[in-house]
Amino acid sequence: MTTLMRDEIGEIPEIVERVLREGEPETREAATAVTGAGVRFVSIVGRGTSDHAAVYARYLVETMLGIPTGLAAPSVHTAYGARLDWRGGLVLSFSQSGEGPDVVAVTEAARAGGALTVAITNEPASPLAVAAEHVLLCRAGRERAVAASKTYVAQLVAVAALVSAAAPDRGLEGPLHGLARRLETAIEAGAAWLDGGGSPVGAFAEADRSLVVSRGFNLATALEIALKLKETGRSFADGYSTADLLHGPVVLAASDVPILAFRPPGPIAASIDEGLDVARRAGARVWTVGSRSSRAPAGEALELGDDLPEALTPIVYVVPGQLLAERVARERGFDPDAPVGLSKVTRTR
Amino acid sequence: MTTLMRDEIGEIPEIVERVLREGEPETREAATAVTGAGVRFVSIVGRGTSDHAAVYARYLVETMLGIPTGLAAPSVHTAYGARLDWRGGLVLSFSQSGEGPDVVAVTEAARAGGALTVAITNEPASPLAVAAEHVLLCRAGRERAVAASKTYVAQLVAVAALVSAAAPDRGLEGPLHGLARRLETAIEAGAAWLDGGGSPVGAFAEADRSLVVSRGFNLATALEIALKLKETGRSFADGYSTADLLHGPVVLAASDVPILAFRPPGPIAASIDEGLDVARRAGARVWTVGSRSSRAPAGEALELGDDLPEALTPIVYVVPGQLLAERVARERGFDPDAPVGLSKVTRTR
Repeated sequence: MTTLMRDEIGEIPEIVERVLREGEPETREAATAVTGAGVRFVSIVGRGTSDHAAVYARYLVETMLGIPTGLAAPSVHTAYGARLDWRGGLVLSFSQSGEGPDVVAVTEAARAGGALTVAITNEPASPLAVAAEHVLLCRAGRERAVAASKTYVAQLVAVAALVSAAAPDRGLEGPLHGLARRLETAIEAGAAWLDGGGSPVGAFAEADRSLVVSRGFNLATALEIALKLKETGRSFADGYSTADLLHGPVVLAASDVPILAFRPPGPIAASIDEGLDVARRAGARVWTVGSRSSRAPAGEALELGDDLPEALTPIVYVVPGQLLAERVARERGFDPDAPVGLSKVTRTR
Repeated sequence: MTTLMRDEIGEIPEIVERVLREGEPETREAATAVTGAGVRFVSIVGRGTSDHAAVYARYLVETMLGIPTGLAAPSVHTAYGARLDWRGGLVLSFSQSGEGPDVVAVTEAARAGGALTVAITNEPASPLAVAAEHVLLCRAGRERAVAASKTYVAQLVAVAALVSAAAPDRGLEGPLHGLARRLETAIEAGAAWLDGGGSPVGAFAEADRSLVVSRGFNLATALEIALKLKETGRSFADGYSTADLLHGPVVLAASDVPILAFRPPGPIAASIDEGLDVARRAGARVWTVGSRSSRAPAGEALELGDDLPEALTPIVYVVPGQLLAERVARERGFDPDAPVGLSKVTRTR
């Protein structure tokens, strides 16, 4: 059996190719504007899945461009009517539909107040695309499953291409162009992992509560897969930074609370292991995607792309997570394409 | 039976008095520095409970001072070694112990890079107090329960006093000085509510999963009480903005998932009700603290301080939430003072 969500995950490699190739002129133009504007701070806005693209973008902008960055709180504008001094700011707005009134309101206020504005959306004629000065398109085609998968990856690639063009010395350009092939591998390897002997599907399907963790760039991946497990499988999956986990929530770790960890190679791995070790001592069973630590049983770790710059790993790692959520939802008897009570476009103010 | 946590909640009114009275000179000095520095953006840093003080501070700074504000991601500095251009920035750092190496590292990097730095901590001789240019003390005395309660409220009051001094035309000064009395009332009314016929204690104690929601200023309260329910009661309590809830997690709403909502009067109430209505239609039972909506059965709503400026309600509303967490933990057979696997000072890097 297949689902729209599964089909749309399958479309990801070609969409990524398209974002990089067809989006190149608009990306270059936006990057020139960003580097020329003397940006002093960056504010990023998004809701739901797009908020996780925003989390990814903040790590990318701060580490690659060296500009202090934070996530916007839309209600500051829509509920409280605050008027901020936006001069010297760059606002990056994420919305797959481009229709969220709160995201549009922040973008309009920032542009009127003197910020440079860049929107990343799948809909070229949407209110958000009209509101922002620059638009980067996801080029993902219509997304029919309610739970976003392909548009999320397209958002990450679009912002990675923007940052790469603004900071060409950071070495992202070459690896970006190898992503489509890596994503094909991730889809195949992810599916094989979920079918294999160490598969996490059974444990996550049986558990009403689970943890999805990482730190740094892949905090975005953890938050996004926790949301996917919630939306499609109605499971209380909590997404956490392993650092925040140690500041309290690690008490939830137990044998009946499976943990999925996104663990890239590089400087963050030791910090992630520190959190996982505490959870394992409390009895938790941990599955990892990324670079396998010596503590993880081989079957329970999906090893992916050890030679990819860590800054690009969230684009690849999220895919096996999406596949897991889709499988867990079906296993739990839910239709991952049509979560009860959700609609494709959510219009919060 | 009583607990350290319950006793320390009882100390809150006198601590608030002390922060306002004894902290007045240091608050005035820091406010003068903030208004004189031509701050263009604010970055706020904290972990765990202190991260929720940071969430509160971001709403306060943006709505009262009109300066774009975001929360810092410590791993950008500690794991990735990014060097940001901090000129024109203000960094507010929250840590009750003042010992979190990651919070200290961000503060040191920001100060060295040209930012104005203000630390809010309970420990005057801590590394954080040394790292920051200005220090606002919590004056809460030693906190013996592992789960922070009184230091959290002290952090909120300290930053509210700072913002009030920096924006004296915003009308916070008078209400700030009435807080101690209101907090005494909140402790009494909260305890009576938990003992009353519409008490949420039973439902939250029986449930392994719950939701704690609000929006705007009290998003901080929702996140903090969800963390308290996790830490002390080992319950999967998820804290959400009602806007984010509608972007996915509302599918978790069900009759066996109790919801606690912090609902201030004012512009945000309608938006909170929108989320609660969807959850109620899915069968959820909702308890509210704050201003009662016409949808809430009287016994299940704790009405508090309708005439307080919304910007100060998180200081009062959190107290019944803390009392609830303490009671739920005991009801579930846990010692709220000593959660298994946690220590008072968490040193994440």
